[in-house]
Amino acid sequence: MQFQLAHAFEVLERTPATFRALLGGLPVAWTSPNEGPDTFSAFDNVGHLIHGERTDWIPRARIILAQGANRRFEPYDRFAQYHESRGKSVAELLDEFTLLRADNLITLRGWQLSDRELALEGEHPELGTVTLRQLLATWVAHDLGHVAQTARVLARQYREAVGPWRAYRPVLGV
Amino acid sequence: MQFQLAHAFEVLERTPATFRALLGGLPVAWTSPNEGPDTFSAFDNVGHLIHGERTDWIPRARIILAQGANRRFEPYDRFAQYHESRGKSVAELLDEFTLLRADNLITLRGWQLSDRELALEGEHPELGTVTLRQLLATWVAHDLGHVAQTARVLARQYREAVGPWRAYRPVLGV
Repeated sequence: MQFQLAHAFEVLERTPATFRALLGGLPVAWTSPNEGPDTFSAFDNVGHLIHGERTDWIPRARIILAQGANRRFEPYDRFAQYHESRGKSVAELLDEFTLLRADNLITLRGWQLSDRELALEGEHPELGTVTLRQLLATWVAHDLGHVAQTARVLARQYREAVGPWRAYRPVLGV
Repeated sequence: MQFQLAHAFEVLERTPATFRALLGGLPVAWTSPNEGPDTFSAFDNVGHLIHGERTDWIPRARIILAQGANRRFEPYDRFAQYHESRGKSVAELLDEFTLLRADNLITLRGWQLSDRELALEGEHPELGTVTLRQLLATWVAHDLGHVAQTARVLARQYREAVGPWRAYRPVLGV
């Protein structure tokens, strides 16, 4: 599937509601367990997406669009949510993510990006030259990857409880 | 995490809304591609869940609760949705799934299952003896597994579009 800005919006604008439907009102018994050291709980996934709204997608898009002398992105801290989310509830994180995402999509829409702008380049600290189009496609895929990861970490809480069905692990996501 | 009926309800009652948030209104450009032969598109995932509502979870629970001479489940057709969903839209499937799930949860709640009943056994055609508790835990994990699978098949449509970010494949789900 080719990247199209309209298609990207269709996913990006749905993600907060998807997380709210999946996690809103769930007790911490579901939302706090992770899959082991340095893995994300459902709670961590939402905090991670919030950190991306603040520091990753739109700030990096701005660096590309500015086409200044230094087009190198700041490295992204994949574990920032471990301290940034501390003391917050899932409900607070869902609200925060919803607001930040809405604001960022207003910004993105306001740019009315042309094909020429989508082809502009920046420099990823590890991956090298990337285009604005690739950055926005990655934003979409990153959202969906974290929907998948969140559903999976929840499913895995029933790893033992499913008993013999554990043989169907790939289908069950446990 | 130990299986608890209250915890199971918390997931089972959310799944239709999660699929609606993720897929409701998405164009077929997103919902129709799959990951290759014998894999599920987003559209197929919803049809598959509908088939489960009709033929799997509650019918199997009834077999266990009846404790008749034959407690063997009917084999489950993982690909029934290929013909059952034909000609329908994602919107129609989401509505159908929502209604069937609501109806099935009314049934499940009405049973007011005791620990003794949750320990009753049936016979899975491939896996052998399983308990009602394990069946219900599997229903939960199966829901979440298909949320994950649906998000993943969407993410993979941008496998090429993300460019160099493909190196972060596990995180992106592409």
